[in-house]
Amino acid sequence: MEEYRIPKTMKAMTLTAYDHLEMAELPVPQPGPGEVLCRIRSVAICGSDPKMIHGGYKFANWPPYYPFVMGHEWAGEVVALGEGVDSWKVGDRVAGEAHHGCGDCDNCKRGHYTVCLNYGKDGHDGGLDTGHRHYGFYWQGANAEYNVYKAAVLHRIPDNVSFDAASMCDCAGVAMHGVELAGVTPGGTSVVIGPGAIGLNAMMECKALGSGRVIMIGRGAKLEKAREMGADICIDFEKEDPVARVLELTNGIGADEVMECSGAKDSPYKACQMVRKTGSVAIIATYHDGDVLIPANTVNFNEIHIVGSKANPNVSDKVLHFMSTGAIRAEELITHRFPLEEYEKAVDIFEHKKEGSVKVVINP
Amino acid sequence: MEEYRIPKTMKAMTLTAYDHLEMAELPVPQPGPGEVLCRIRSVAICGSDPKMIHGGYKFANWPPYYPFVMGHEWAGEVVALGEGVDSWKVGDRVAGEAHHGCGDCDNCKRGHYTVCLNYGKDGHDGGLDTGHRHYGFYWQGANAEYNVYKAAVLHRIPDNVSFDAASMCDCAGVAMHGVELAGVTPGGTSVVIGPGAIGLNAMMECKALGSGRVIMIGRGAKLEKAREMGADICIDFEKEDPVARVLELTNGIGADEVMECSGAKDSPYKACQMVRKTGSVAIIATYHDGDVLIPANTVNFNEIHIVGSKANPNVSDKVLHFMSTGAIRAEELITHRFPLEEYEKAVDIFEHKKEGSVKVVINP
Amino acid sequence: MEEYRIPKTMKAMTLTAYDHLEMAELPVPQPGPGEVLCRIRSVAICGSDPKMIHGGYKFANWPPYYPFVMGHEWAGEVVALGEGVDSWKVGDRVAGEAHHGCGDCDNCKRGHYTVCLNYGKDGHDGGLDTGHRHYGFYWQGANAEYNVYKAAVLHRIPDNVSFDAASMCDCAGVAMHGVELAGVTPGGTSVVIGPGAIGLNAMMECKALGSGRVIMIGRGAKLEKAREMGADICIDFEKEDPVARVLELTNGIGADEVMECSGAKDSPYKACQMVRKTGSVAIIATYHDGDVLIPANTVNFNEIHIVGSKANPNVSDKVLHFMSTGAIRAEELITHRFPLEEYEKAVDIFEHKKEGSVKVVINP
Amino acid sequence: MEEYRIPKTMKAMTLTAYDHLEMAELPVPQPGPGEVLCRIRSVAICGSDPKMIHGGYKFANWPPYYPFVMGHEWAGEVVALGEGVDSWKVGDRVAGEAHHGCGDCDNCKRGHYTVCLNYGKDGHDGGLDTGHRHYGFYWQGANAEYNVYKAAVLHRIPDNVSFDAASMCDCAGVAMHGVELAGVTPGGTSVVIGPGAIGLNAMMECKALGSGRVIMIGRGAKLEKAREMGADICIDFEKEDPVARVLELTNGIGADEVMECSGAKDSPYKACQMVRKTGSVAIIATYHDGDVLIPANTVNFNEIHIVGSKANPNVSDKVLHFMSTGAIRAEELITHRFPLEEYEKAVDIFEHKKEGSVKVVINP
Repeated sequence: MEEYRIPKTMKAMTLTAYDHLEMAELPVPQPGPGEVLCRIRSVAICGSDPKMIHGGYKFANWPPYYPFVMGHEWAGEVVALGEGVDSWKVGDRVAGEAHHGCGDCDNCKRGHYTVCLNYGKDGHDGGLDTGHRHYGFYWQGANAEYNVYKAAVLHRIPDNVSFDAASMCDCAGVAMHGVELAGVTPGGTSVVIGPGAIGLNAMMECKALGSGRVIMIGRGAKLEKAREMGADICIDFEKEDPVARVLELTNGIGADEVMECSGAKDSPYKACQMVRKTGSVAIIATYHDGDVLIPANTVNFNEIHIVGSKANPNVSDKVLHFMSTGAIRAEELITHRFPLEEYEKAVDIFEHKKEGSVKVVINP
Repeated sequence: MEEYRIPKTMKAMTLTAYDHLEMAELPVPQPGPGEVLCRIRSVAICGSDPKMIHGGYKFANWPPYYPFVMGHEWAGEVVALGEGVDSWKVGDRVAGEAHHGCGDCDNCKRGHYTVCLNYGKDGHDGGLDTGHRHYGFYWQGANAEYNVYKAAVLHRIPDNVSFDAASMCDCAGVAMHGVELAGVTPGGTSVVIGPGAIGLNAMMECKALGSGRVIMIGRGAKLEKAREMGADICIDFEKEDPVARVLELTNGIGADEVMECSGAKDSPYKACQMVRKTGSVAIIATYHDGDVLIPANTVNFNEIHIVGSKANPNVSDKVLHFMSTGAIRAEELITHRFPLEEYEKAVDIFEHKKEGSVKVVINP
Repeated sequence: MEEYRIPKTMKAMTLTAYDHLEMAELPVPQPGPGEVLCRIRSVAICGSDPKMIHGGYKFANWPPYYPFVMGHEWAGEVVALGEGVDSWKVGDRVAGEAHHGCGDCDNCKRGHYTVCLNYGKDGHDGGLDTGHRHYGFYWQGANAEYNVYKAAVLHRIPDNVSFDAASMCDCAGVAMHGVELAGVTPGGTSVVIGPGAIGLNAMMECKALGSGRVIMIGRGAKLEKAREMGADICIDFEKEDPVARVLELTNGIGADEVMECSGAKDSPYKACQMVRKTGSVAIIATYHDGDVLIPANTVNFNEIHIVGSKANPNVSDKVLHFMSTGAIRAEELITHRFPLEEYEKAVDIFEHKKEGSVKVVINP
Repeated sequence: MEEYRIPKTMKAMTLTAYDHLEMAELPVPQPGPGEVLCRIRSVAICGSDPKMIHGGYKFANWPPYYPFVMGHEWAGEVVALGEGVDSWKVGDRVAGEAHHGCGDCDNCKRGHYTVCLNYGKDGHDGGLDTGHRHYGFYWQGANAEYNVYKAAVLHRIPDNVSFDAASMCDCAGVAMHGVELAGVTPGGTSVVIGPGAIGLNAMMECKALGSGRVIMIGRGAKLEKAREMGADICIDFEKEDPVARVLELTNGIGADEVMECSGAKDSPYKACQMVRKTGSVAIIATYHDGDVLIPANTVNFNEIHIVGSKANPNVSDKVLHFMSTGAIRAEELITHRFPLEEYEKAVDIFEHKKEGSVKVVINP
């Protein structure tokens, strides 16, 4: 890469109040010690983005101030290095994690940095800085031409993976973490509920880890997409009872593991009914009002394991590798691309599942 | 032990129809190959017993025929050996597990013999015999002077443990399995919800495995019992909010693990709210109508593990050992003792928690 | 399948003394309760076979009597069912495990049936029968037209997998167990030492479970075979230092896991030197005189995990599945095929690695 | 605590060359951001200290410069806080870990901060600072009146635990990590080889985690000490064969887990011979020349797990808790106490096991 010329200001899409988005010209930030300035090339819209725009995360102070630059699924290039950074060089193609742990709390020290106990404590005014970051949630995100990141959240993009594909590193990673927590039985039967972006990633990851067959449960165009992308068996829950069908397909034994990625209120319940004794259910989705029923006696009698997966600790290199081999076909998940200026339209298409949208990518 | 004289017939308490119990004189059964005849000395009544008496397990064919001899938490003596049994000798003091796996299905071969895939398939008429047994549920149980058992379900009782105490091997074992599945954090904070027999055992087991403090949640006399038996902190849920109190006691972090032993409809929900990020919740109880709410977004955000524990695989020697050292003070759980003839009265006292009953033992 | 006509006698290759093999005409055995008679179609020769022929297992009473029918890696058809067997029907194509656990000892009850505590206790004279079997080691094996097996050791062969390929179920399974014990890091670097049949299986299994790249260490024709079959990187240990090369390939970090399948005396030592901190080393091989050096301070400083893998518990369906998908290309491992009569010649070719032999299969 | 008056200079015991120790008057260091200044009250001498004094760690640049202040097992008081530290206050009684991970490398992010990949990269001249520290090894240690620590390496000392006892936090923690990696079987049989300070801690920890009995293997006064401190069975390896004796005590099955804490060249070998099938062996010691034999075929046949444990990640609060309950009787391990001026004498007594020394503590 030739020498890189960094401008003084940049375009950024800002949230100025709930449901108010505004293009702005902001100063390009400077990387501090241990940080890196990146030129953002691709940002994928996540289900949490419209929720934050509409004020759905009030309780959590997301965002914590206005105007706020959102965006946390991204890929780009390293353009400047802060003091003491020797792990990257200008020109490196990188994808970023949204979470950086403080490194020092009990959870970080045990490897659970996405549930850092110092989450959200850091101010933005030069006050306390524990080192924790959640970019795009309470710390400035990627909906801009540039952003500064802790060097440790970056991961090298394999040469044959595009920026657009790599922007799905975070999304594929959330799925991967759930898949790893639940475990994949080599040669076994995995079920994925919900053929959205997370579910389709989970499906491909189950196969990459040796699952014998993946059964996808969904409906309509997204279920069709799952079929095209390699689901071994598709169950349309509007046409047949998915629990009965999974039990039938497994001789009454049940699936070895179920990845619940739909967020539908009755899916965790059904997941527990269709999984085998001692099998596991990963809750990778979030739910509209948060409370769902589970068949507690079935959980008890069948010794089922339920695991919650919120984020993507320690999996980025894994999913970028699978993108490189084609095991995760990230490009195929991208249905729409827009420039930064059309972010609002992009969110609308993504949020309301218009035009068969699965994953919508912004190119700032 | 002097030579043992086995009579031809024995007293047995039989269930002849839902809610009909009747003393009977039955032939003493003969041990087949690999089996052992035991003189039953103590049988503890389990919460599942009144449920079965009242027909609560219709769906599962419990019991499968009438008249049926119930009773599955027991201790006694070996009095005769079937062909090929060399692991026991006449006079051995033993406690029994309720489950014997077929040994050959996929679950048994992976060590999960209490969720054997051949559960309930065996007949009682000389037909198919996979080797599976669930004594006292669909195979003749311990409410009698004698019963025949597979040699492999027996466990030696340490000399300083009484038959009455040892009859709690199964009950303590169910708790232990849940405690092992959830894991105990050495020096950490464990919560047990429900100071019944299972919960009190779980409490003592958490401490035996190194828990730093056990918080018991309950009310009334049973909570008082927990305090007497060593609960570090007792929370009366009628007087204060247990979730708020646990969070306060843990500086807002939450408990390391929660053992839900109450069967109360809202307990699994609260358990998920009071456990730390990446913590675990064991569902060791069953629930009246089976379906309970969980805070799914909390499970997801906090990466909580929920594990179901139904029975007691591979823990009998562990709990008998802890009874021997005094870590499990089983005798103190026994509030009432009755001869076999008074079984109906014993069940009434146990089921309706009369006279401060915790564990009620029958001595046939 | 048309009705199957079972003859009274069969051809069998017997070991009559150390280093004495003899064709014999033996009675076709009858399946007892829970057993199945199989027509043997393919038997693969294992490294343990020549060792047993030469009397290398004296200590273990392998074989326990003469004449003895060896052979434990096999596939064939079900031709008759013993009493109570409803899991198979005549005509089913099956591959067999060598081990059947007693089902009742502490190890079997915990799922470790290949290290059954009743190993070798069973007689062959109608005496004690714990149910344990190790076919081809101390119980009659597959070097014959027919043999009787416990129903539970059989596994269905997928339609597109040949008998010859399926006879490698046991061999691929031993590798798979080691690979599962060591764990495969998705997208990571796995090393396999020793490109023999076990090592080549381990290599393919690492890839099937998501390894990012497999480095094979060996030499000569077998290393070339590994390259043809998909090793990502081949290191000829006669031409370069494998430890230095692995460290170079991993930027000094070391491999995520090492599968030691060579049996060379210095391989476990090198494995510990080339694996990353907290990485794992699977000892899947056996060693000529049994004792090998390890760099204990490196094991300590780098917190390395070493796991021994002797056999194949609970993995047969997994490897047969991977044979079906082509992830394990078992047919390509077979370099020679012989009729039963030429067993001695077959062993000679296999044992002395003549004619580029990898896996040699007998078709009785 | 009244206001604390920090002097400008302090006494320190410095290593000025191999085998040259010298008292010095050094400036009291200042805590930087995220750091804390502590008044050192107790420093325990570790086996690695004499080794470093004699130049045994040349390869690792221990120490990296002269004069160097050693000492890494310590306890003391917080006397001043660096910028941004709100987790401690002046007067807090604390014990320290020797390791602080960089927090950002692949190992730290997975919770393995004691095998941080940035170990030893940091300079002492204002150059690169990854945040990694190994106090007393390549970063200034505790053999002084004061030292500066990262806030995250400190752990609160329970009120009833003395500074002297708490200085054993690191030593007890190394044992605890090994014990946790190997696992303790509740009610089972644990063996500890080597009744030194690490081994005695391991013994007490096994019991605190529910071991049924701990067998200690050693000789002489230290073995006698183990007996006094609660070893259930003591084996003097000079008087009987420890492998034969352990097998006899376990009916030929073997111990459930073995903690090798002796550093004797033949101990890992014997550990593998005396552990049960699928059992585990923790290598918690280091060895004079580093290479030891293991019975590889036994490891393979018996599916033994060997785990290396070098340090003490995430266990400090656990062992401090056990000191508080009396499960770890740390005070009883201390046989000698000296002022800082007599450090050389103290090391001599410790190193050469004079006067029945087990643990020797310095009070600066």
